[in-house]
Amino acid sequence: MMSWRPLAALREGFAHHDVVAALQCAGNRRAGLMQVRDIPGEAPWGPGAVGNARWTGIRLADVLAAAGVAVGAEHVAFLAPDVSAQACPPQPFGASIPLDKAMRTEVLLAWAMNGQPLPRVHGAPVRVVVPGYIGARSVKWIQQITVQATPSDNYYQATGYRLLPADADPAADAGDGISLGQLAVNADILAPDEHGGVRAGPVTVSGYALAGDDRRVVRVDISADGGRSWQQARLAEELSPWSWRRWEGTLDLTPGPAEVTARAWDSAASVQPESAVQLWNPKGYANNAWARLSFTVT
Amino acid sequence: MMSWRPLAALREGFAHHDVVAALQCAGNRRAGLMQVRDIPGEAPWGPGAVGNARWTGIRLADVLAAAGVAVGAEHVAFLAPDVSAQACPPQPFGASIPLDKAMRTEVLLAWAMNGQPLPRVHGAPVRVVVPGYIGARSVKWIQQITVQATPSDNYYQATGYRLLPADADPAADAGDGISLGQLAVNADILAPDEHGGVRAGPVTVSGYALAGDDRRVVRVDISADGGRSWQQARLAEELSPWSWRRWEGTLDLTPGPAEVTARAWDSAASVQPESAVQLWNPKGYANNAWARLSFTVT
Repeated sequence: MMSWRPLAALREGFAHHDVVAALQCAGNRRAGLMQVRDIPGEAPWGPGAVGNARWTGIRLADVLAAAGVAVGAEHVAFLAPDVSAQACPPQPFGASIPLDKAMRTEVLLAWAMNGQPLPRVHGAPVRVVVPGYIGARSVKWIQQITVQATPSDNYYQATGYRLLPADADPAADAGDGISLGQLAVNADILAPDEHGGVRAGPVTVSGYALAGDDRRVVRVDISADGGRSWQQARLAEELSPWSWRRWEGTLDLTPGPAEVTARAWDSAASVQPESAVQLWNPKGYANNAWARLSFTVT
Repeated sequence: MMSWRPLAALREGFAHHDVVAALQCAGNRRAGLMQVRDIPGEAPWGPGAVGNARWTGIRLADVLAAAGVAVGAEHVAFLAPDVSAQACPPQPFGASIPLDKAMRTEVLLAWAMNGQPLPRVHGAPVRVVVPGYIGARSVKWIQQITVQATPSDNYYQATGYRLLPADADPAADAGDGISLGQLAVNADILAPDEHGGVRAGPVTVSGYALAGDDRRVVRVDISADGGRSWQQARLAEELSPWSWRRWEGTLDLTPGPAEVTARAWDSAASVQPESAVQLWNPKGYANNAWARLSFTVT
């Protein structure tokens, strides 16, 4: 366990690094699962539970190397001061990541975001940034870092943020299922605005894609007919291996019902699965089904 | 470029290590794509273009460290002596992997397999073993290792083993598409034998699952009704992070048509996509669609 060091000591003691990285909540795109079946008590996130920013700070690996890592260490646990009543029992927010990930150069203790001091809501004075993992592992307002043999036993690591099978009872079976960490390939559509009225002709379709963990976004396909035929979208510049990738394409839409669909591929040739029906889970996590917009073209 | 060192010098000069790892051909399960549309000139692999073994040898990372890696190095290229007429122009088989992967402890130069001297057909005297990557990167009969700034320009790296979009012409568009390296989550069913006659009642369904790259297999679902309902299979012991994972479950089958289906999840909560129709590609690579067996129960 590292005792608390004032921010100034961290800033002066270690080399500064920038990483452009997307942070995505495990519940991003939950609304797509809720269309399949209701998920009581959880936020109906659309495509917006993700953000992309330039983070500035020091490498967690440098801090761990300075502190010294004992033999048998396998996980790095983070603790924040914000006590949540959702946790059972109520406790501060915590998380952990494997030591192997913690030692990678992309994992930061960050105090700046897009060249500005980190806003308090984003974790000032210092937060963890764990690119490629669910946002819950990028602990804000970090107060304590512990290197240990086992994953954190904090509620949010040991019990919460787990992918339960569809037939599980989220109360009785909490702590079962897949502990979420690394993210899977994902994408969503940001334009056109299907509620704004879309007119026939060439229509620009755009959005974002994330590869997750240490993979890269290598291709995004878009379709005007719900995936019966595809064309490739143009990928915008890759700002960093940890950034989301913006994409854009033009679909020729004819009057009548349209089903605009997008799917991303990562560098392991893993593509998003087709249907949210097959991904539904009781807490509404990890929806990486094809992005779909259904609307009527005028 | 490292000059050739006799095997004895490698065996004496570096620590020996064992890794249990699956090697899977990029074309494993191609037959499932061929059921969608023909793929002329390629082998119709079923579930069998994969194997799991205990490999013994030295770490590539140790050899690279001893040789010294220059600044700017990004890739490690392998060259074999076997000249293939399939390559254009005809040339020895080669491949490369990112330096970051090459430096990981699981990548070996191996001379033994399951405790026995490596058979010639498997790459004796020495082969590369790159767990989690397509088999083509685990070059057999290795003769030359080059650390370089760019991926290998060998035909099998620069042109072959690429995932082309469905509408590409494999001759004209060779070299386009996604260069295959890391594997995606995959699974197949090995029993029951659907041609052997399956009788109604409890039926044992078993198979293998692979996570690919540095992920782990965390769940396998099986279904008797083509994926309308699922139950979890029992996972056998994980022999190593790089091993395949055997699984088994019991389905209650009733007389009539059955559609036995399996799908695996990796530690990033990435699940196999539903349909090979959506994965078809002109060279028939990277089929990781749900495993399906259709037969009549008597």
